[in-house]
Amino acid sequence: MAIGEAPLPEFYPVAGVRLGIAAAGIKKPGREDLVILELAAGSQVAAVFTRNRFCAAPVLVAREHLQSGAPRYLLINTGNANAGNGDQGMTDARRCCEALSRAASVSSQQVLPFSTGVIGEPLPVAAIESGIPEALASLGEHHWARAAAGIMTTDTRPKGATRKLMLGGEPVHLSGISKGAGMIRPNLATMLAFVATDAAIEPALLQQMVAELAEESFNRITVDGDTSTNDACVVAATGQSPAPALNPASADLPVFREALLSLLQELSQAIVRDAEGATKFVTVTVDEAPNREQALKVAYAVAESPLVKTALYACDPNWGRILAAVGRAGVDDLDVAAVSIFLDEVCIVRHGGRDPGYEEALGQAVMDRSEIGIHIHLGMGTARERVWTCDFSHEYVTINAEYRT
Amino acid sequence: MAIGEAPLPEFYPVAGVRLGIAAAGIKKPGREDLVILELAAGSQVAAVFTRNRFCAAPVLVAREHLQSGAPRYLLINTGNANAGNGDQGMTDARRCCEALSRAASVSSQQVLPFSTGVIGEPLPVAAIESGIPEALASLGEHHWARAAAGIMTTDTRPKGATRKLMLGGEPVHLSGISKGAGMIRPNLATMLAFVATDAAIEPALLQQMVAELAEESFNRITVDGDTSTNDACVVAATGQSPAPALNPASADLPVFREALLSLLQELSQAIVRDAEGATKFVTVTVDEAPNREQALKVAYAVAESPLVKTALYACDPNWGRILAAVGRAGVDDLDVAAVSIFLDEVCIVRHGGRDPGYEEALGQAVMDRSEIGIHIHLGMGTARERVWTCDFSHEYVTINAEYRT
Repeated sequence: MAIGEAPLPEFYPVAGVRLGIAAAGIKKPGREDLVILELAAGSQVAAVFTRNRFCAAPVLVAREHLQSGAPRYLLINTGNANAGNGDQGMTDARRCCEALSRAASVSSQQVLPFSTGVIGEPLPVAAIESGIPEALASLGEHHWARAAAGIMTTDTRPKGATRKLMLGGEPVHLSGISKGAGMIRPNLATMLAFVATDAAIEPALLQQMVAELAEESFNRITVDGDTSTNDACVVAATGQSPAPALNPASADLPVFREALLSLLQELSQAIVRDAEGATKFVTVTVDEAPNREQALKVAYAVAESPLVKTALYACDPNWGRILAAVGRAGVDDLDVAAVSIFLDEVCIVRHGGRDPGYEEALGQAVMDRSEIGIHIHLGMGTARERVWTCDFSHEYVTINAEYRT
Repeated sequence: MAIGEAPLPEFYPVAGVRLGIAAAGIKKPGREDLVILELAAGSQVAAVFTRNRFCAAPVLVAREHLQSGAPRYLLINTGNANAGNGDQGMTDARRCCEALSRAASVSSQQVLPFSTGVIGEPLPVAAIESGIPEALASLGEHHWARAAAGIMTTDTRPKGATRKLMLGGEPVHLSGISKGAGMIRPNLATMLAFVATDAAIEPALLQQMVAELAEESFNRITVDGDTSTNDACVVAATGQSPAPALNPASADLPVFREALLSLLQELSQAIVRDAEGATKFVTVTVDEAPNREQALKVAYAVAESPLVKTALYACDPNWGRILAAVGRAGVDDLDVAAVSIFLDEVCIVRHGGRDPGYEEALGQAVMDRSEIGIHIHLGMGTARERVWTCDFSHEYVTINAEYRT
């Protein structure tokens, strides 16, 4: 299952970026499961990673290599997360970087490793090593779609987004791919997402922007509340566009920022639309909160409530469950009489109780849609937050009960 | 589905307590759905209630009536929660109390109302009023089992526990019933539980003890993380046993306290064993935590993880999901190298990675059991907490997708 049609876009190539793919036999033979993203010398790379304390070995190595600067290659495998593997996991992640660095004549610090798949099984290093020559041989600037497919796990479809904008009269391109369908509740980070632009941008500015925009995109999605050990969102800027370089004073900065944000939101929402077993795409908005933290508490309480999610799956306008989730969210001094709740345009709760004008048929009409907004007004202030989630279906249970079989 | 056999015990009658039951036609005709619990004059009543901000009208009324003292009747209906009904809900709850108070010749403040069932539908007051004479006519001290059945909603079986102990050479009895299977994550309160004893005990001591013991019983269970609007745990002490009255200095107090705790734990665990769709009873213990709050954070992160719960359902020793949940629980300064995790007697994680002696067959043998312990050692201190939960099955989705149809 997945929500709506979502064909991949025609990706704009990004000057200075090439992608290579191989079928390395990591999990099953013949499937493309190894992706290399090559960056031209001089590219700037910013990234945010999972805050799960059990972060995977490739996350630790990528973070370390990023600090030593000048990344030239992202090396991404699916089929194995290389998480929970202790010292052996670290050794294995480094060995993969070394194999690519030898073949590409760069230092191993210039390779950032990323892994996704099952936790706690040894990384098949030999398979990855043997796939690297094939992936390097296939490097080309048009392989974004194949790369998007090559990083999938339980995803049912590849995810990508692309933008072109004019800065100072010159074209700048952004293209990106993401993956993820379960274990999704990024925490100041994301699932795997790789974005590249040919814009020139100061490294500190790029890092700051990525951290900020991740907060408004990947850090606002949740499928099951389970923050992964391997989340990573990487944005590379090659600087090869003829457009003027971006710095904090650039008049064009808001234009670029907006394009990057919309691309990150599209990629993150694509994960929710393809979430394990999902049949509904749900936007939970909390308004009139005393502050953003309290707004998020309420939004996540609703978005992650198994009872709300199963009601959504059943197209059942069981608004009592939404109300109960708001009430247990832990908001200090919540005045229930000030709360109102809408399903899209239909008011279901006013002054803390069923809206006098509400009729079941009105709620039912909204619940039958595949994209639904739940709007909660707390009547306590002016802060507002929004998260994106999905419903909870039989298919989710099936997928996760049978994941390793 | 429900875990294990759990026949009701032979309840000890409690001197000073009578129970009455009626089929009032609240949800479907012919089913016993109205229960009255009568307390002798002079009984002490202690209670803890839900901390969901949207607490139901009967919770508000019961709390108010409890403060005015001298409760004589508990009036309990299933089939309708009378929650989310605004002012009308308050009016309706009071009307039910008044109907019983007139019929029983007490003041309406001496009646405590309790409701459970669907949220947001008007309480059928006329049906309840019409059932009250039948319930009063049936009052008897041996009806605990019928009362346990009369308060069920999605429960598949009635839940009860009973104890007899000797204090100062005289017998004291405790009997209690509980209900609940979904929307279970009591917050400093419980689902519906009604317990009575003929012990004599000071009111302040009783209230303090109930609040404390609820923390070690009902407040340590979770089915789906959804705190109900209607949770209530009531303990009544009639003082009709010839045993000496209990006060804070009584030598017998620990004996009584232990009996009450074991009874409350049995009642609360019975809810988990009969949780919606449950096939496994799981005890999550977190040890060596820096404090109890952090221990609970980890315990609930694991106990409520949809990925852990679906793996339990599948009998899949997918320990990576447990590890990921521990890592995202939000414990400050967690040192993953100090963490070890056991499935019952089998060590799966040591020093933050797969235990060298672990083999899948060992984990599989534990996961095939219907009662499983997950023990997590954080290596950070001496605090310890424990919560009880269940797995997450297709049946849970079915029950909650079809709840109102």
